[in-house]
Amino acid sequence: MLFERIESAGLAHYSYLVGAGNEAMVIDPRRDGDVYVDQATSAGLRIAHILETHRNEDYVGGAVELAARTGAEVWHADAQWEYAYGQPVRDGQTWIVGRFTVRALHTPGHTPGHMSYVLHDASGAPWVAFTGDALFAGDVGRVDFLGPERLQEMAGLLYDSIFGRLLPLGDGVLVCPAHGAGSVCGSAIADRVWTSVGLERQHNPRLQAASRAEFIANVARELPQAPYFRRMEAWNLAGPPPLGSRPAPRPLSPAAFADQMAGAVVLDTRDELGFSAAHVPGALNIDADRLSSYAGWFVPYARPILLVNKGADPTTVVRTLARIGYDDVAGYLAGGMLAWHTAGRASQSVRTVTVQSLCRELDAHGEPWILDVRSPEETRHMPIPDAQQIHVTELPQHTGEVPRDRPVYIFCGSGVRATLAASVLQRAGVTNVIVVLGGLAGWSSTTCPLGL
Amino acid sequence: MLFERIESAGLAHYSYLVGAGNEAMVIDPRRDGDVYVDQATSAGLRIAHILETHRNEDYVGGAVELAARTGAEVWHADAQWEYAYGQPVRDGQTWIVGRFTVRALHTPGHTPGHMSYVLHDASGAPWVAFTGDALFAGDVGRVDFLGPERLQEMAGLLYDSIFGRLLPLGDGVLVCPAHGAGSVCGSAIADRVWTSVGLERQHNPRLQAASRAEFIANVARELPQAPYFRRMEAWNLAGPPPLGSRPAPRPLSPAAFADQMAGAVVLDTRDELGFSAAHVPGALNIDADRLSSYAGWFVPYARPILLVNKGADPTTVVRTLARIGYDDVAGYLAGGMLAWHTAGRASQSVRTVTVQSLCRELDAHGEPWILDVRSPEETRHMPIPDAQQIHVTELPQHTGEVPRDRPVYIFCGSGVRATLAASVLQRAGVTNVIVVLGGLAGWSSTTCPLGL
Amino acid sequence: MLFERIESAGLAHYSYLVGAGNEAMVIDPRRDGDVYVDQATSAGLRIAHILETHRNEDYVGGAVELAARTGAEVWHADAQWEYAYGQPVRDGQTWIVGRFTVRALHTPGHTPGHMSYVLHDASGAPWVAFTGDALFAGDVGRVDFLGPERLQEMAGLLYDSIFGRLLPLGDGVLVCPAHGAGSVCGSAIADRVWTSVGLERQHNPRLQAASRAEFIANVARELPQAPYFRRMEAWNLAGPPPLGSRPAPRPLSPAAFADQMAGAVVLDTRDELGFSAAHVPGALNIDADRLSSYAGWFVPYARPILLVNKGADPTTVVRTLARIGYDDVAGYLAGGMLAWHTAGRASQSVRTVTVQSLCRELDAHGEPWILDVRSPEETRHMPIPDAQQIHVTELPQHTGEVPRDRPVYIFCGSGVRATLAASVLQRAGVTNVIVVLGGLAGWSSTTCPLGL
Amino acid sequence: MLFERIESAGLAHYSYLVGAGNEAMVIDPRRDGDVYVDQATSAGLRIAHILETHRNEDYVGGAVELAARTGAEVWHADAQWEYAYGQPVRDGQTWIVGRFTVRALHTPGHTPGHMSYVLHDASGAPWVAFTGDALFAGDVGRVDFLGPERLQEMAGLLYDSIFGRLLPLGDGVLVCPAHGAGSVCGSAIADRVWTSVGLERQHNPRLQAASRAEFIANVARELPQAPYFRRMEAWNLAGPPPLGSRPAPRPLSPAAFADQMAGAVVLDTRDELGFSAAHVPGALNIDADRLSSYAGWFVPYARPILLVNKGADPTTVVRTLARIGYDDVAGYLAGGMLAWHTAGRASQSVRTVTVQSLCRELDAHGEPWILDVRSPEETRHMPIPDAQQIHVTELPQHTGEVPRDRPVYIFCGSGVRATLAASVLQRAGVTNVIVVLGGLAGWSSTTCPLGL
Repeated sequence: MLFERIESAGLAHYSYLVGAGNEAMVIDPRRDGDVYVDQATSAGLRIAHILETHRNEDYVGGAVELAARTGAEVWHADAQWEYAYGQPVRDGQTWIVGRFTVRALHTPGHTPGHMSYVLHDASGAPWVAFTGDALFAGDVGRVDFLGPERLQEMAGLLYDSIFGRLLPLGDGVLVCPAHGAGSVCGSAIADRVWTSVGLERQHNPRLQAASRAEFIANVARELPQAPYFRRMEAWNLAGPPPLGSRPAPRPLSPAAFADQMAGAVVLDTRDELGFSAAHVPGALNIDADRLSSYAGWFVPYARPILLVNKGADPTTVVRTLARIGYDDVAGYLAGGMLAWHTAGRASQSVRTVTVQSLCRELDAHGEPWILDVRSPEETRHMPIPDAQQIHVTELPQHTGEVPRDRPVYIFCGSGVRATLAASVLQRAGVTNVIVVLGGLAGWSSTTCPLGL
Repeated sequence: MLFERIESAGLAHYSYLVGAGNEAMVIDPRRDGDVYVDQATSAGLRIAHILETHRNEDYVGGAVELAARTGAEVWHADAQWEYAYGQPVRDGQTWIVGRFTVRALHTPGHTPGHMSYVLHDASGAPWVAFTGDALFAGDVGRVDFLGPERLQEMAGLLYDSIFGRLLPLGDGVLVCPAHGAGSVCGSAIADRVWTSVGLERQHNPRLQAASRAEFIANVARELPQAPYFRRMEAWNLAGPPPLGSRPAPRPLSPAAFADQMAGAVVLDTRDELGFSAAHVPGALNIDADRLSSYAGWFVPYARPILLVNKGADPTTVVRTLARIGYDDVAGYLAGGMLAWHTAGRASQSVRTVTVQSLCRELDAHGEPWILDVRSPEETRHMPIPDAQQIHVTELPQHTGEVPRDRPVYIFCGSGVRATLAASVLQRAGVTNVIVVLGGLAGWSSTTCPLGL
Repeated sequence: MLFERIESAGLAHYSYLVGAGNEAMVIDPRRDGDVYVDQATSAGLRIAHILETHRNEDYVGGAVELAARTGAEVWHADAQWEYAYGQPVRDGQTWIVGRFTVRALHTPGHTPGHMSYVLHDASGAPWVAFTGDALFAGDVGRVDFLGPERLQEMAGLLYDSIFGRLLPLGDGVLVCPAHGAGSVCGSAIADRVWTSVGLERQHNPRLQAASRAEFIANVARELPQAPYFRRMEAWNLAGPPPLGSRPAPRPLSPAAFADQMAGAVVLDTRDELGFSAAHVPGALNIDADRLSSYAGWFVPYARPILLVNKGADPTTVVRTLARIGYDDVAGYLAGGMLAWHTAGRASQSVRTVTVQSLCRELDAHGEPWILDVRSPEETRHMPIPDAQQIHVTELPQHTGEVPRDRPVYIFCGSGVRATLAASVLQRAGVTNVIVVLGGLAGWSSTTCPLGL
Repeated sequence: MLFERIESAGLAHYSYLVGAGNEAMVIDPRRDGDVYVDQATSAGLRIAHILETHRNEDYVGGAVELAARTGAEVWHADAQWEYAYGQPVRDGQTWIVGRFTVRALHTPGHTPGHMSYVLHDASGAPWVAFTGDALFAGDVGRVDFLGPERLQEMAGLLYDSIFGRLLPLGDGVLVCPAHGAGSVCGSAIADRVWTSVGLERQHNPRLQAASRAEFIANVARELPQAPYFRRMEAWNLAGPPPLGSRPAPRPLSPAAFADQMAGAVVLDTRDELGFSAAHVPGALNIDADRLSSYAGWFVPYARPILLVNKGADPTTVVRTLARIGYDDVAGYLAGGMLAWHTAGRASQSVRTVTVQSLCRELDAHGEPWILDVRSPEETRHMPIPDAQQIHVTELPQHTGEVPRDRPVYIFCGSGVRATLAASVLQRAGVTNVIVVLGGLAGWSSTTCPLGL
């Protein structure tokens, strides 16, 4: 038998390929589907069924293109919406994969029509539950997609789904969710990379609620929604444009790059140090590893993207962007910043400071303005006295609140998001920004005469 | 966190690499350890601990060489034996891997000093049990390594280990054994590639015994022991010879190959059809995919091996042999049988027959001799009337019982082991052998006028 | 600078990727173009120009799809024909690639509008000539594509191209043709994998002609034209269908395979021994390594193909077929012949004989019919007395000449094409065929009492 | 036939694998020999001969270990020296590889016993000359290894080797040297990645000398010799330590890294921007791509190396170091500078300036001190007025000449070597260093009001 979990790094998205006999199924495929086709073919399996647990809003689904390549049938949950493809799943519906059976289990809450799929072994016993965004390791799915007025209702549905349908499968049953730690779909997802009903029942904090009401009280809250969710939703209803043969990213000389900058977003995916040392004027900095999580907040879909990337080859970055719906990459800076500088072009830098120097600087300075761009959860857990709190994802709407007349020291957890914030502020005309290298982690690892 | 299961195909051996922070541990490493080094290095982890669940007898362990490459400490179970390396594990001993703790759990039965290792998550709760050869998916470890007189005792110990120590961990805890389906270490291992305490408690046939006595009665039996187990045991106590830089398999022209045949074993790892069509006279046929399971019964360690293999590159076969202690591969036939034939050399063939033709042949023939080389378990489950039963692994000791004066039709499940048997008989001078293509599976898929 | 020769094994086709600065060009791209895109992207190069030396007839060109992916301009030679894409090249036209210049050189003969392209280094000196099918290592292009009436004319043009345009470039200039040894486009191509004008001038047998007339006399002859050339020509004028995302080959159970056999071609790409031992009744045998050379003679485009292949994964075979225009692969036999036999299905075999046994058999036999399927060139060079000569590519039209009433011994060089021939004859109802393993090579390596 | 050129990037070293029949030879193998073993094995070839063109001084040769793995015979040139392995080659000696012959040609000059090897095709005609360090594309080997007193003599020998032995092979013969563009063994090596006797005769500047005397006058000069050449020479006479199984690079936490810094060299292989933004105090910066060329001048063999590298995986850097004899890598900073900063550790930075800002700064400044670290050749070709010239490789001996009392602006070609120079100066206590991003290339691409 074939049982593979395919992880899309960055997205922390898990899809699954399950096969036996001559047939296989894929659960929640991502957009670039070669991995499923290749593994199934090597194993002599035909992908016959594609199952979606819900209409995703955090990545572009790959069901339509994968179906076209394999002849598979697509089964979508959330049948209440108007899909342009596939067929709706019914609760209790079953599929046969070799000597195994898979059964649909309606588990609403994250979305109204969310389905889990339970894989039964040859004896008929439930073995694995593919729980989509209903139940994660250490967390549950968010319930705010239908708006604030339905929060209570959806949280209640989720309670019933988990306590009434998933937990009764038995403690031994394995839980295979659609996301792992690092996903934007659950901020508290644990790094228990494999888990079970029993482990979640005992250790998942959300499942320790004493009552349905307490569960709802804990879970029914609004979380920030990335603007890009709208595109994902629309595409995932309509079926996204096919990727087809991989497009060739276009290398651009410094001159050609500069020529295309008007109207484009310059997206620099290098790390915080490279970017702070020198970058193309006006560039936005999102580290390649955090692109899936943050691009949606800062990069509009309507503008072409010009890339500055870490190494010579932008293929990985381009694929990451495609997975979240950014198909319009106009090119990348061939030869990177070295080419830019040897072409005699001007660049910008961001001042940085280590925590040790910061102690001295703050001491010397009269009125430092300290900006904390961590999330509300992080700041609640470990606040910085006297700091202004603007979560980095909300910074574009709040750049006007940042003073122009004195140094702005930016803190995040490590310095990475602070550099992203610095790039946003620079673009908004705030020039005197300083990134604190090491961020709160560095700060709390050292000692400083100041009370900070 | 890094949590990887590394499978050695053929052996159906599972080892595990677990890491967090800057450190990693490997449980039951195989001999060729590049995979652990590469994955740990990519993740920025130092392999600091190597843990063995027991002294293995079915593959060559890689702890000593891996330790030399990484500086890791080696911890061996079965401390009652005299190891030339490492340190003995104590029950209850713990190791720290980042924010995780691993604890040793003495689980004797398969061997007297067998250890399981329980991985606890950051909260201290047990999460994964590495159960070695104590508990598999759908089966338990064999208890006959100390001889028939201690069968009862060891089976009792195993009962206590499983029911007294492993099951109490809780149904949700994941079970990660040292073998999966296809291993010689457990004939009934299920294809539940991931499992849990709860799934085993409910569905593992061995664990359904009503009492300790019933468990012992079911489990305390002798199984065939491959002769090669002795080499594994000795090497795994002493620490096997290091692999070092991979040796280059030596391509041989047909003439050079023929020159070296005296004293060597010609091992042909092609499939049943290629071998039956033509092979080097005197060659032994073991399909590459079954080499780990069968080589130990047929290939003596004292003689050099000459390979005839499927494709152009023998690297995979040579590595498979090294994993079970065969280091003396003298060379391989460059260009394969095509080179052999174009050099004008004589070859042998084995007659084959499809099940359809067999019906007609048996009908026409007076006294067919039918040899069934399946295992006792298989023949018990689906016997062939009037067939002589000699399990293929015992055939070398019983070739004298096979008649020379009439056709010998050989059956196995599919035709693969029948071809191995045919090669053994040809080497013993039995020339009139016929392999039934499709074997019992083919036979039972068709209908035949005969009563067979 | 980037200078890569990309070889398509089987076709023995060479394409070239040349880049410097930020731009690259591809000369004579094959259909599946990932290799060009990946290498150019890694090197920070944009594929800006695609140059064709002539309208190919032996493989499907990839210019159109590659242009769509990269934005490159396509330049085609043979401007006298009506292309549906690209722009015609003019003699003397130049392109800039970084500090290098490439210049078109009209070198008709193989086709009327055939172009070579000369790469000049930074100093302006000619460095490499991409000679397409005009000049190979050890051979020249064939001149018979326009039919017998224009043989003299085309051979004369080729003489002028080589002696008047290519040789004057200077002995030191490197020659990079479109094909290497093993191509159907030049039977005498040498295994000089890199060569130069000087080496060809001195050692290419065709270039030793004492006069233009002698050159024409040697070169102006008709060679067999594979029927599939017509499809290549048509597609390469129109622009072939894009490959797009790779289609997933469809695994078929034995039952599903059998159901689709009516109307389809069963193509078995295993080696001569596996096929002769057992194959699906009616299958055609072309070894995977020889598929590019032989499929065009035996497999009609109008029928779907069902594959039986060597290993588990048909991806390579499917790609090879796509390169010569076979896009309609309906599926492959999952699990191979082992699955076929265990499903209880009947198979066919071909009798084989080694050269040693053949001596004895021929001796015993009264009237053997010996069929030699080698090419006329091969048989001329080393004839078999009393053998009937039918080149394997012409066998489908001549099966009626093969006797049904006595054994037919089939010879080729090694036994590989003989097995292909046997499969053709079996399909035509000639059942008593015997393949001589080792073929002429084996025969001449041994001694036999017969006068053969 | 197999004909492969294996390039070791960074070293710009070419080795060659040539095979036919069942045997292969390797010319000038590098230390890590898997590539030869793997390719030969795939092709069914046994590496039977290893040929060295001369005792190398710029990389560690791999002949001894490769011979141990393959059973090949090693043939070394420069038989006048005392080798601990292999056998001396005689001029005119031949080897057979399938249907090809290889002949040794004594071509002294670079070293006294330097050999070239000429590959003759099946007809006996010379086809390829492996010219080692005698003749490159666009350059000839240096002649100063035996000291200044023998410069004339060695240059004369080289003239005789090239004009008397290599050029007479004929213009068409291909030239395959031991180095390509970018090697420290020939500063003028052209990017003609494949070349021929004729191309070199016509276009190699060294070969345009009107007479032997003029050739000697041009060629007989001393070049800087990296200190590390001594280790290479010693190892390549004795046979270097075997690599064996690849050692696992050791990841270190910031604390463990800091603990080991005393006595070690901290080698930071990131690019100029990352390093200038922040680095471990006291680190030396050599970009990974330039490690082969520069490490020998700055890193003593007697001290352990601690690495800070670009990405997560130091494997490539560790291998590059092993190729030039640095085996003592004590560890690498796991998690890179981000881990360093989040651990609250102090770092250093280097100030950078773009050429645009430099204009303004120089204008504002009274007495700038400008340091030009390019090579004498580069400075001669494009001098910087008023700059102090110290070639970066000589900087460690001249740090005392750099003023401490005012800003030091460092120029190189691009900014890369300037950052290396800045790291050297920082270690020597010169703190006020500024790297000019883009260097001379950037400077000459822009315009500046200053006369610089």
